[in-house]
Amino acid sequence: MNTFGEHFSFTSFGESHGRAVGGVVDGVPAGTEVSLPVIRDMLVRRSGKGQAGVSPRAVGEEDEVEWLSGVVEEGDRLIALGTPIAFLIRNTDARSQDYEWLRHSFRPGHADYTYQAKYGIRDHRGGGRASARETAARVTAGAIALQLLEERGVSVHAQLIQVGTETDPAKMETLLQTVQQAGDSIGGIVGCRVTGLPAGVGEPLFDKLQSRLAAAMMSINGCHGFDYGFGFDALDQRGSDLYEKDGKPVDVLSPQAMTGGIAGGISDGMTITFRCLFKPAATIRRLYGGRHDSCIAVRAVPVVEAMTALTLQDLLP
Amino acid sequence: MNTFGEHFSFTSFGESHGRAVGGVVDGVPAGTEVSLPVIRDMLVRRSGKGQAGVSPRAVGEEDEVEWLSGVVEEGDRLIALGTPIAFLIRNTDARSQDYEWLRHSFRPGHADYTYQAKYGIRDHRGGGRASARETAARVTAGAIALQLLEERGVSVHAQLIQVGTETDPAKMETLLQTVQQAGDSIGGIVGCRVTGLPAGVGEPLFDKLQSRLAAAMMSINGCHGFDYGFGFDALDQRGSDLYEKDGKPVDVLSPQAMTGGIAGGISDGMTITFRCLFKPAATIRRLYGGRHDSCIAVRAVPVVEAMTALTLQDLLP
Amino acid sequence: MNTFGEHFSFTSFGESHGRAVGGVVDGVPAGTEVSLPVIRDMLVRRSGKGQAGVSPRAVGEEDEVEWLSGVVEEGDRLIALGTPIAFLIRNTDARSQDYEWLRHSFRPGHADYTYQAKYGIRDHRGGGRASARETAARVTAGAIALQLLEERGVSVHAQLIQVGTETDPAKMETLLQTVQQAGDSIGGIVGCRVTGLPAGVGEPLFDKLQSRLAAAMMSINGCHGFDYGFGFDALDQRGSDLYEKDGKPVDVLSPQAMTGGIAGGISDGMTITFRCLFKPAATIRRLYGGRHDSCIAVRAVPVVEAMTALTLQDLLP
Amino acid sequence: MNTFGEHFSFTSFGESHGRAVGGVVDGVPAGTEVSLPVIRDMLVRRSGKGQAGVSPRAVGEEDEVEWLSGVVEEGDRLIALGTPIAFLIRNTDARSQDYEWLRHSFRPGHADYTYQAKYGIRDHRGGGRASARETAARVTAGAIALQLLEERGVSVHAQLIQVGTETDPAKMETLLQTVQQAGDSIGGIVGCRVTGLPAGVGEPLFDKLQSRLAAAMMSINGCHGFDYGFGFDALDQRGSDLYEKDGKPVDVLSPQAMTGGIAGGISDGMTITFRCLFKPAATIRRLYGGRHDSCIAVRAVPVVEAMTALTLQDLLP
Repeated sequence: MNTFGEHFSFTSFGESHGRAVGGVVDGVPAGTEVSLPVIRDMLVRRSGKGQAGVSPRAVGEEDEVEWLSGVVEEGDRLIALGTPIAFLIRNTDARSQDYEWLRHSFRPGHADYTYQAKYGIRDHRGGGRASARETAARVTAGAIALQLLEERGVSVHAQLIQVGTETDPAKMETLLQTVQQAGDSIGGIVGCRVTGLPAGVGEPLFDKLQSRLAAAMMSINGCHGFDYGFGFDALDQRGSDLYEKDGKPVDVLSPQAMTGGIAGGISDGMTITFRCLFKPAATIRRLYGGRHDSCIAVRAVPVVEAMTALTLQDLLP
Repeated sequence: MNTFGEHFSFTSFGESHGRAVGGVVDGVPAGTEVSLPVIRDMLVRRSGKGQAGVSPRAVGEEDEVEWLSGVVEEGDRLIALGTPIAFLIRNTDARSQDYEWLRHSFRPGHADYTYQAKYGIRDHRGGGRASARETAARVTAGAIALQLLEERGVSVHAQLIQVGTETDPAKMETLLQTVQQAGDSIGGIVGCRVTGLPAGVGEPLFDKLQSRLAAAMMSINGCHGFDYGFGFDALDQRGSDLYEKDGKPVDVLSPQAMTGGIAGGISDGMTITFRCLFKPAATIRRLYGGRHDSCIAVRAVPVVEAMTALTLQDLLP
Repeated sequence: MNTFGEHFSFTSFGESHGRAVGGVVDGVPAGTEVSLPVIRDMLVRRSGKGQAGVSPRAVGEEDEVEWLSGVVEEGDRLIALGTPIAFLIRNTDARSQDYEWLRHSFRPGHADYTYQAKYGIRDHRGGGRASARETAARVTAGAIALQLLEERGVSVHAQLIQVGTETDPAKMETLLQTVQQAGDSIGGIVGCRVTGLPAGVGEPLFDKLQSRLAAAMMSINGCHGFDYGFGFDALDQRGSDLYEKDGKPVDVLSPQAMTGGIAGGISDGMTITFRCLFKPAATIRRLYGGRHDSCIAVRAVPVVEAMTALTLQDLLP
Repeated sequence: MNTFGEHFSFTSFGESHGRAVGGVVDGVPAGTEVSLPVIRDMLVRRSGKGQAGVSPRAVGEEDEVEWLSGVVEEGDRLIALGTPIAFLIRNTDARSQDYEWLRHSFRPGHADYTYQAKYGIRDHRGGGRASARETAARVTAGAIALQLLEERGVSVHAQLIQVGTETDPAKMETLLQTVQQAGDSIGGIVGCRVTGLPAGVGEPLFDKLQSRLAAAMMSINGCHGFDYGFGFDALDQRGSDLYEKDGKPVDVLSPQAMTGGIAGGISDGMTITFRCLFKPAATIRRLYGGRHDSCIAVRAVPVVEAMTALTLQDLLP
């Protein structure tokens, strides 16, 4: 339930306002070298420090990872022992008082009600497990997976490609600031490209590569949509457009571009492309006060990379 | 690999040009009554008989299900014994000759190449497992799951809601016919609504309800996109739109509508809404000849219902 | 629930007095050649034909396997397509009348009561799934796994090594006949040796090789005990006996013999040895009439081989 | 790989000579109260303090559990939040120098060689994960499971019932001391009784209750045999002995006693009885020096209880 993956697995623990968040990564081969600066960089990106669309008040101290097992620390790197790698990140910036008024209310569009319905109790002090705080553990584990993939020549790169209906980077930046200042929120799209993945990854029927990627992305808070290849843009097209346009033959790779590097549930060796839609957050400063990003897609970028890496590392033989 | 679900599971077998397709459904409580006409109706819808966008030549004889184990047949219904329900549907309409020329070629945008890369061999006679033929087994199993859900007050209803960029039913119909006559193909969207699902279904972290639904939908051939609630349409909105529009307060349920009946990965007891994008098929008659639908979304409608039912029945306690 | 294994899996279906028993084997590589005579021989051994301790009346017609999917049949062999292999064996010798009196009674020491408690109904016509009939499907699937193992140099060989307290083959035979004639039953031990298994199979913590083997053996009807290496015989020994006996050093491999080819949950590359205890059946002819073996261990021998093969093929990378 | 259970799961981490051992327990209902003294008592029993057959030098400081997430600590008890419970036990008594000479040797009968074969490296400083140290985490997690079971009226009680061939408690004690003083080792049997388990637990085919229990017991270091009910003692019996002895009818419950509370893989509501055989340890002081118990079965008693509880809590609906 809190474990992701079978062959390369990640078990997540910790509440946003408890002592710590952390995780256990199982399946890292003995002898693997893991760079600590790479992990630190991803955690800084996740913190949103200095990024448009992120509430400056939401950026706390730097996350420090304590390694409990499975590794020997040597300067700026870890050497894996082949045993489960357990780690924790202590919570230093917990401000539960911001949420005190929630004790007796349910916010529409939030998990307040569903948690109450499922568990009979809820942690009114800031979302507990539903909080974005838990993604610090995902990013730490994902940063390990990313390094294992890099060793095999597989790269994962995500970025913010749309804010609202805006796709021009400069205009996206301006829009994010406007919305942030208004104490409002806006949706966005994170695009992800995987290069170097060999052909043959994924299973033909139920465990299709796109099934696994979609499930992973949908597990990120606020992600409400997923498509790959041309995705929803393919509605403007005809099947024949893949072969000829205006009477002229088109690039023979056009059908592959449409499929986003996956055919029949299996990678074809070309670049994998997919997109994740993040909704406008329902918790807006104008209504609820507190520290809230205007666009949750911004800080989701390294989380998309982390979940992609955890998925692929689990699937690769 | 060919099994879907853990508590309520479906194992699929059979090739499109082999002796039969079929499956094993595990987890049907002893004493359950299953209506055969309901199964038959879903199989007829899957066959596409008389529907716009479906190649008339592609509609074969009616699929007949032979029940091998797990049930006693009593007239128009089955009584489940609580043991695995195995069934098969013999292939009567196999025309492998249509595909003979494929033996030495790879079609772009198809699984021909990825299968070859993964397995070293492929069944050039019509796609083998990748073929839509396999969905007859999914629909049969799904029709059992749907009846189990109905007993608990849960209804699943899917329909074609968009063809290309067209959302008006009459115009969709015309467009489908035009494209069919041109031997071309077009994308479409299947919308699905689940009513009666109690609050509390889904897990908060990795096994979110939307993760499971997205994975299931993405396992359907040609499905290249998934969103729920407002989905990609939320890009036109601000978070504040959920509470007020043009200075006036909006329906308090608006945030719930955006979330599509799911919050924090868990159902909230309201209607679940999601959409599945189907790409324009790369195999078009104009280029490849043979029997091909102009819009694969049309026959996908009962498959979406089947996969939704199999997912929910597996998740419900 | 009715599926065994994850990477190489077997899903079993069918009731003893229904239309058929059968199964789906998933994970056989495309191109694998499977010998039909090998399968047939194992099914004949499972039938108990001509063996002491087996009720002659219990031996029916030969089991005939119908292959539904996943293979092409070429004379005496099958060629695997890489897709799920589904098969069925029709029930021809069902004599449910023998059990008619059971409708209103629970036999002590049987599953009659537990099935009723768990499912609310039971199939009083001969045990349903609990019946030994289901093992025909296990043996068929296991015979495929055994051939895959043989290709990799791994051999599995089981045999009856004890009847009651008797370990001399000739005396075992006589004892079996005496007990059979008396309409009584007796326990026995099936020993199993696996040769050629490479070092490194099994996981160090929970998925130890001995854990997986024990679980598989315990899933065979009537198996009430499992040990490996010296097993329960080690109670007569001291740790020092492994190194010296009567003041003289013993074979350096003695500790390995004690461990039965497994150390720390992982195979060490030497012969794996384990034993399965089968209890005296509670259903005896003297009390219940009908067709009953005096020693269920006799017909369990090929089932032990089959379950061992299914386990190892699932574990081997 | 390091996770046990599906619905109620335990993920274990930590090396014997690293910073800490610990675990993550998933599936404890929100609001559950857990007694800390109960956990402490089990950890003391696991330490072997003051018990015959345990090397006095092997008993270190008391294990102290630090709770990282999933609980609120209130005096002598924990209140579960419903989220994953993560904990760690720091290693204070690591004496790796005892093992320094092992760097260049493989001990026969140990996991030294199999680890090297599987992973290419091994932790020569005392067994790493194979060490008994890891059982501290199992016992902590198991103590939580035991309390959840007690709330439902299910009790698990294990005890040492045989040392070598000795079953008289007083003589067992003497034998343990004699062997300890000789720097030798001896095997033993731990018996376990489960009372209060409702009828209906276990699955009829592959996930039989005895399969799950056997796998769990076999995952304990040194456990080389498992039987339930009469087990191997049934070899002295005939099926008819269950109904009459010396011409007189016996207790009608006799067949149930033979089956040890399980029939057809499913609990029958009566007491479950099983036994675990522990081999004489191959590492003996006389040969290897160091701190070694004369009978590993002694300290295994609470581990048997812990693994039984983790298994049953996972199986109970």
